[in-house]
Amino acid sequence: MKQVNRMFSDRITDVPRSFIREILKVALDPSVISFAGGLPNRQLFPIESLKEATCKVFETQGRDVLQYANTEGHVGLREYISARYHEKANLVVPVDDILITSGSQQGLDLLGKTMLNDNDAVIIEEPGYLGAIQAFSLYRPTFFPVPVCLEGMDPDALKAVLASARPKIMYSVPNFQNPMGISYSAHNREALAMVLEGTDTILIEDDPYGELRFFGNAKPSFKSLLPKNTVLLGSFSKSLVPGLRLGWIVAQSELMQKLIIAKQATDLHTSHFTQSIVHQFLLDNSADEHIRMIRDVYGHQCKAMQSSIHKSFPFEVACTRPEGGMFLWAELPLGIAAIDLFESAVRDKVVFVPGDPFYVRGERHNTLRLNFSCSDEQTIETGIARLGRAIRKLMEAM
Amino acid sequence: MKQVNRMFSDRITDVPRSFIREILKVALDPSVISFAGGLPNRQLFPIESLKEATCKVFETQGRDVLQYANTEGHVGLREYISARYHEKANLVVPVDDILITSGSQQGLDLLGKTMLNDNDAVIIEEPGYLGAIQAFSLYRPTFFPVPVCLEGMDPDALKAVLASARPKIMYSVPNFQNPMGISYSAHNREALAMVLEGTDTILIEDDPYGELRFFGNAKPSFKSLLPKNTVLLGSFSKSLVPGLRLGWIVAQSELMQKLIIAKQATDLHTSHFTQSIVHQFLLDNSADEHIRMIRDVYGHQCKAMQSSIHKSFPFEVACTRPEGGMFLWAELPLGIAAIDLFESAVRDKVVFVPGDPFYVRGERHNTLRLNFSCSDEQTIETGIARLGRAIRKLMEAM
Repeated sequence: MKQVNRMFSDRITDVPRSFIREILKVALDPSVISFAGGLPNRQLFPIESLKEATCKVFETQGRDVLQYANTEGHVGLREYISARYHEKANLVVPVDDILITSGSQQGLDLLGKTMLNDNDAVIIEEPGYLGAIQAFSLYRPTFFPVPVCLEGMDPDALKAVLASARPKIMYSVPNFQNPMGISYSAHNREALAMVLEGTDTILIEDDPYGELRFFGNAKPSFKSLLPKNTVLLGSFSKSLVPGLRLGWIVAQSELMQKLIIAKQATDLHTSHFTQSIVHQFLLDNSADEHIRMIRDVYGHQCKAMQSSIHKSFPFEVACTRPEGGMFLWAELPLGIAAIDLFESAVRDKVVFVPGDPFYVRGERHNTLRLNFSCSDEQTIETGIARLGRAIRKLMEAM
Repeated sequence: MKQVNRMFSDRITDVPRSFIREILKVALDPSVISFAGGLPNRQLFPIESLKEATCKVFETQGRDVLQYANTEGHVGLREYISARYHEKANLVVPVDDILITSGSQQGLDLLGKTMLNDNDAVIIEEPGYLGAIQAFSLYRPTFFPVPVCLEGMDPDALKAVLASARPKIMYSVPNFQNPMGISYSAHNREALAMVLEGTDTILIEDDPYGELRFFGNAKPSFKSLLPKNTVLLGSFSKSLVPGLRLGWIVAQSELMQKLIIAKQATDLHTSHFTQSIVHQFLLDNSADEHIRMIRDVYGHQCKAMQSSIHKSFPFEVACTRPEGGMFLWAELPLGIAAIDLFESAVRDKVVFVPGDPFYVRGERHNTLRLNFSCSDEQTIETGIARLGRAIRKLMEAM
């Protein structure tokens, strides 16, 4: 029986426990091959350039960046972000529409805080990003999961939700989605934008991986297709380093004013010291060159995982073919639960994330997420071979 | 008429606007003398030692501190905090009871998130810290302000609240309170602890200034008087630098588990890079020595403000006599609103914070907050003289 303690809010008891935390503990054993994490590859952190940028910040700005600062964030950094949107995606984003956050996870929290009342309808991807489900759960919405397939989100299923509810938020990761690694096609984006056009649902376009494209062309952002109703979330976690905890929200004036109030009440502001370091790094280094290197490495790792899968998995297992990002998604034959595979894979010293935490309904799903950004090609081959054996064993036992 | 936009949550429309933000804009004019801010004195930031600590962190830990990290915070830093509580206050605080936050403002947000349902009763000091009122407001409690005087909080008024409500939280800044600069006496603390003993109200003891004592002896913390029902908040913002955004929550296991869930959903974790810098600084430098220097400087600035007040203010104005911290509080003769004084003081190029934002009820209060930590003695004398003239003018016009 659930023990209710008067001390706690109802909302905190609603947050799903992070199963992933438990998995990551297993992955600490160095003899275990882990495809479970969602970490960028630490080998690619530009440690020397960041150190130089940090020294320069100390020399040129010194005490200023160690004082309390404005809530909106470092102006130079916001100007850089605005200019890059223009250069890379032909998006016009005024500097005043950008709020620097402590990672884009905080962006989700601030949007939930600013927008959601109890039981408000929120559309999420199914399967979808666990961190978003957790962040929004704290504001007690009703989730409407809409299935995601290789092409993107199902427009008819979206239409059906809009016919029965009036969602405040639709949350989407259209590029190299977490957990599936798929990208919404251009056609799919246009179809979804047409469904949302004229409604007052705000589309939250979370784009932490967008720059990490290995092949194919960038697709139009929702921000360009549905400019008034789209809020963009960005992050330096995947394109630079996660440990400085820097992300941003792009939102128009009326919403931005409320987000600034929420940010101030939540933690006053994000460190201008870490913001200045990243700004200095971006002034002195080519982001394009750095990102190209990440893409190359992740692209090779992804390919290595795909060919290992081809070699080692039974052909009854279906996998996504990511054009970028850090994840690949596998679907086991119906009747095999990924959680059972996990149990036996742990014994073979290889781990991954079973699909379950990425769904708000159902259990014992037959899907799993594989991360390829943190393992070299040899490790990938060994780990996938172990996993293949474990899958075959389960299939034989059916 | 208030325009209601469906996009927004009810909670965000409940947050009081920060009047102080507007004041701080006026204070940007370098010809204006400002006693308005709540900033520590930037001259005292140990910039060279922090730079050295940062270089060392890059050299010894490199990429590790730039990766995603655990939610609870840097173990070494939490051990340091635990050891210091033992050394300075004879408090036994297990490392597992410490959660690192992005400033203690975030501690308030996480506690509100974890504990408060709509309309839950929250006891606050009157006048009290605006940031706490803002943070809690997002969780829509009912505030019960209890008057604070030179001795501390009124135990009878507290008793009266407890007779009529069952508050979840009592929020208190017992050392060098913001905004009044007063400290609760030992006797007052004991009396309040006795009133709370046996209730299930959680006392949040916010102690950002506790180490900044100019004279007198430290008083027993609520954590020592009421160990089971007290949550402690601490911060490096006033004793080191605010710009790294580092604070902490001390809470016992059951609550701590929920706070960790809330922290993870809110921003995953606070930067281990900035945590490592502070930890390295504390390993290589004497915190006591550094804090002694801050105390000396603030003590002199406080004294300078007191003697300027003695010289320049009409004796109808009453002021607090802080034993530490950064603020002094003045009470104008009844009938003079601090907000009117503010209008005329701005014209004389001196600003402060009128009392109004520190109360949740009433308006046109006759009280004001004066910050002394950021001005040198000459500036203090000039500013207080201008303010004295402005007060006299208003009194003559009565």
